[in-house]
Amino acid sequence: MKEIAVIGYGLTKFGELWDKSLRDLFVEAALKAIEKSGTDEIDALYVGCMSSGLFSEQEHLGALMADYLGKNPIPAVRVESACASGGVAILQGIYAIASGFYETVLVGGVEKMTDVSGGSATIALGTAADSSYELFFGATFPGLYALMATAHMEKYKTTRDALSLVAVKNHFHGKFNPYVQFQMEITKEQVLSSPMVAEPLHLLDCSPITDGAAAIVLTTKEKAKKIGRPYILLKGFGQASDTIGLHQREDITFLSAVAKAAEAAYKMANIKPEDLSLAEIHDCFTIAEIMVYEALGFAEKGKGQELILKEKTKLGGKIPVNTSGGLKSKGHPVGATGVAQVCEIYQQLTKEAEKRQVEGAKIGLCQNMGGTGASSVVTIWEVMK
Amino acid sequence: MKEIAVIGYGLTKFGELWDKSLRDLFVEAALKAIEKSGTDEIDALYVGCMSSGLFSEQEHLGALMADYLGKNPIPAVRVESACASGGVAILQGIYAIASGFYETVLVGGVEKMTDVSGGSATIALGTAADSSYELFFGATFPGLYALMATAHMEKYKTTRDALSLVAVKNHFHGKFNPYVQFQMEITKEQVLSSPMVAEPLHLLDCSPITDGAAAIVLTTKEKAKKIGRPYILLKGFGQASDTIGLHQREDITFLSAVAKAAEAAYKMANIKPEDLSLAEIHDCFTIAEIMVYEALGFAEKGKGQELILKEKTKLGGKIPVNTSGGLKSKGHPVGATGVAQVCEIYQQLTKEAEKRQVEGAKIGLCQNMGGTGASSVVTIWEVMK
Repeated sequence: MKEIAVIGYGLTKFGELWDKSLRDLFVEAALKAIEKSGTDEIDALYVGCMSSGLFSEQEHLGALMADYLGKNPIPAVRVESACASGGVAILQGIYAIASGFYETVLVGGVEKMTDVSGGSATIALGTAADSSYELFFGATFPGLYALMATAHMEKYKTTRDALSLVAVKNHFHGKFNPYVQFQMEITKEQVLSSPMVAEPLHLLDCSPITDGAAAIVLTTKEKAKKIGRPYILLKGFGQASDTIGLHQREDITFLSAVAKAAEAAYKMANIKPEDLSLAEIHDCFTIAEIMVYEALGFAEKGKGQELILKEKTKLGGKIPVNTSGGLKSKGHPVGATGVAQVCEIYQQLTKEAEKRQVEGAKIGLCQNMGGTGASSVVTIWEVMK
Repeated sequence: MKEIAVIGYGLTKFGELWDKSLRDLFVEAALKAIEKSGTDEIDALYVGCMSSGLFSEQEHLGALMADYLGKNPIPAVRVESACASGGVAILQGIYAIASGFYETVLVGGVEKMTDVSGGSATIALGTAADSSYELFFGATFPGLYALMATAHMEKYKTTRDALSLVAVKNHFHGKFNPYVQFQMEITKEQVLSSPMVAEPLHLLDCSPITDGAAAIVLTTKEKAKKIGRPYILLKGFGQASDTIGLHQREDITFLSAVAKAAEAAYKMANIKPEDLSLAEIHDCFTIAEIMVYEALGFAEKGKGQELILKEKTKLGGKIPVNTSGGLKSKGHPVGATGVAQVCEIYQQLTKEAEKRQVEGAKIGLCQNMGGTGASSVVTIWEVMK
């Protein structure tokens, strides 16, 4: 495999950004990534975005963003895989470079979610599920993840405390990240006293509705070396799909697409989960983080909560997870999320993560998923050599 | 470059298909393509679709279609570039194979447009333009192409007759294609007596609103040879972008992204326009076909109409264009269009096109574009060797 590097990243502040449009957000993150990378020779553009049609009444994002970035006439493509749009866009950038047709590719993700009402946002997000057999009958994402949480708690005795502690940990991490939407610590008691959204999930078990963008510059290792700025290297990746509908699965307590994507990524990287220094994972709801631990092999099936209860995934623990604050504290502009994860791993592996730096970080994993895990991407990155 | 082949295609009937859903359409075309290709070892799936969010309240099409095709857990990706979504999806399939990570990839395109009202469809299609600076102020696609037509007629004395004859030619071709939406000949007089949509464009200058899907199976030449069924080979491709807004361009009478995509494709294929046996081009409006002739180098700038007036692009002419019936007669399910073009070239180069067969067809070109040409893809294919 041709060795592929990330040589720069850019993030907007995440939050309720009423003074910035969809294109403003994307261009801000992309220009930061270009500046950081030390090159503006961008050969192609990938834009991860879930539902700009429903959120912003705008499609054709590849052409739009290439134009507003001043990059016409480069090829520009929008990629969608619900909340995994960013992660899947990164894979397309990787294939584009590996194919030999392009040398340097900018991959960005964006979502502008707060220009519509909460109800409309819930519907727009619901289109990541099966619209005919789930959304039509009233299922929403908090509702679907509540089913998964209930089943997991019933089958494995996962505790309500463990769910709360995922949120507490991620908000603790988020305190050290200036880009996050909710930069504040929370307590277990606050999680439990926040409004119930879909039993057993309270408001503080859910990632928020967020505007934001993230971008990275991907290139060959040769070019990265020539440029001479800090970079990180792709070590492995995997992508897999599962049934779109939760009701179609044999076991709703296990994320099989995540497990299959991870298996492929570990194999390509030739590593085991215990070789990882840290991970950014898709904690759209607190239960998701626990289930992803199990699918990634960080814990055995049903034992995900032990990592949380023993603080193994907290900064300073054996494998810190979501040092960025995760979707929970950072916010979840769905198309941007998968790209923002790689931005965090870049900062950690290049030792730019300041107060949330994982000491001696060498290998980092990103796991991004769409819907109730119907699509998932895992990438593994290592420090420059 | 690793040599890449199309070894099978599948099409649904195009039209107002109220008894078939978005997923039904995609799966029907995909299964036909798999059957025709002689292999069901599909390593990855690409779905071209413009706006399933606004047309069908469904995103996450990669995962959905992989599931309903019975292909979980393969990686599945939805690609969007407005009306060029299908063409751009094909390029991603090409990169995926050229990267060496996948051997056989199914690329399909789909759009289900008739479940919403005409007004809603116009808005959904309008999201291919600049929603802030065009759509918001009332511009629609017939309106934007009418501006281009007016400017072209003013600058180059392009005649109203030439526009009509594009529609007449494409409906003549469509008569021989069982998949088309409007399988009937029309006359110049009928074009002129059809309702005015946006001066100078009448209803019969416009491609219709259509449901439909198309799919192809892409693989390496080695695998295609092993399978032993008829295949066609990729000879070259190009993709380019232009300003999203028509008002931002120096010259609205020339499609520069089409010209740049074509230039790259000709260079890679090492051919000139006169080497082509036939072409499928993006005649979303009659004026578009004339402008695309000029951008592809079939005619000099401003002289596109001569090809139509002299019947050079009609079956039996020097370079037949849109033997499938084009978007005009075949219909324009926007995400499917770019893939359907390659289906036609496959049929022509493998001599399966029956009554619309171009004698001795050896090299065929497909040109697909989004919006008013803000994104465009050109691919060139040749007969199996």
